[in-house]
Amino acid sequence: MVRVYGMAESGNCYKVKLLLSQLKQPFEWIETDVTRGATRTSEFLARNSNGQVPTLEVSPGVFLPESNAILGYLAEDTPYWRGDALERARVLQWMFFEQYSHEPYIAVARFILLFAKKPDHPLLAEKQKRGYQALGVMEQHLSSEPFFAGAHYSIADISLYAYTHVAHEGGFDLAPYPAIRSWLERVRAQPGYVGMRG
Amino acid sequence: MVRVYGMAESGNCYKVKLLLSQLKQPFEWIETDVTRGATRTSEFLARNSNGQVPTLEVSPGVFLPESNAILGYLAEDTPYWRGDALERARVLQWMFFEQYSHEPYIAVARFILLFAKKPDHPLLAEKQKRGYQALGVMEQHLSSEPFFAGAHYSIADISLYAYTHVAHEGGFDLAPYPAIRSWLERVRAQPGYVGMRG
Repeated sequence: MVRVYGMAESGNCYKVKLLLSQLKQPFEWIETDVTRGATRTSEFLARNSNGQVPTLEVSPGVFLPESNAILGYLAEDTPYWRGDALERARVLQWMFFEQYSHEPYIAVARFILLFAKKPDHPLLAEKQKRGYQALGVMEQHLSSEPFFAGAHYSIADISLYAYTHVAHEGGFDLAPYPAIRSWLERVRAQPGYVGMRG
Repeated sequence: MVRVYGMAESGNCYKVKLLLSQLKQPFEWIETDVTRGATRTSEFLARNSNGQVPTLEVSPGVFLPESNAILGYLAEDTPYWRGDALERARVLQWMFFEQYSHEPYIAVARFILLFAKKPDHPLLAEKQKRGYQALGVMEQHLSSEPFFAGAHYSIADISLYAYTHVAHEGGFDLAPYPAIRSWLERVRAQPGYVGMRG
């Protein structure tokens, strides 16, 4: 059974929980509180020298970090990462978009408001501006496609759902994004879906 | 023949050029100057709504953005992305590390110094601090493995080489990183290697 080192309130960690649930794959969850320094101990850094959760213990003593790499590992040869080379690369495209153009703004704005509780933080406005740019790119795509990689739900949807569905906790208003709101509903309707706090 | 929309001085774009050269795959390069707004035109945004290079034109009218997704697409079924599910996920792990923990600091510090020419930029010190953290993680890994995914050169090495080999242009000193310097030499010794400006 795989073991997940994760923090329940982290969208990056929730990605792994959601996919494992949809794969009906049993797992052990080790709650690891980033906000209390649990990823900076020498014990944890031996698992992941970059000091981040989620980290998957694939087998005893074998660790895999990076949420989207974990999704790729678990989804190999499953319907969650299907298709020819181009279809599979579309999944990568949106997972890299998520880590570069979405998470650093939407997740960080949420961190500033929800965990640091600093609504006057000097970087918040810039994070929200760039977060809205990412939402604009998503809205445009979802206006013509049901899911990020096209016709089928994939790990790209799991990756982008994780922080988009709690974007309001980062101060984002999704009212002007009807295609994103419809897509959030389509994700929630997938077999095996579990909520972040469910 | 694929077409690459790219900027010659961009490490993200160089990744694509390096892999295509190593695959001996002919390509057309369309120089696209980000610093002069060439990715913000309506014509370019129709190719990539996120307005970034590199963007690969896979076939006429079919576009794939995100440098590391392009590497994944081109490397499918080649020795540059080999192995079982875990070995392939290690390649993803380091490519996500690159886009999240490396490029936003090392490439952005380089942009501030080389293109914006603002050595007094208020964010430079923080970018350099975080960039050195990424170099520390890389140095530790390369002290025990020849390449990022383990025994074999892969697209993870291409991804991390792109900005590491020009890190000095972002003010980084690689002298205290002997394992990284040896690895840079191993990359340069690979068959089909071409330089960024070569």
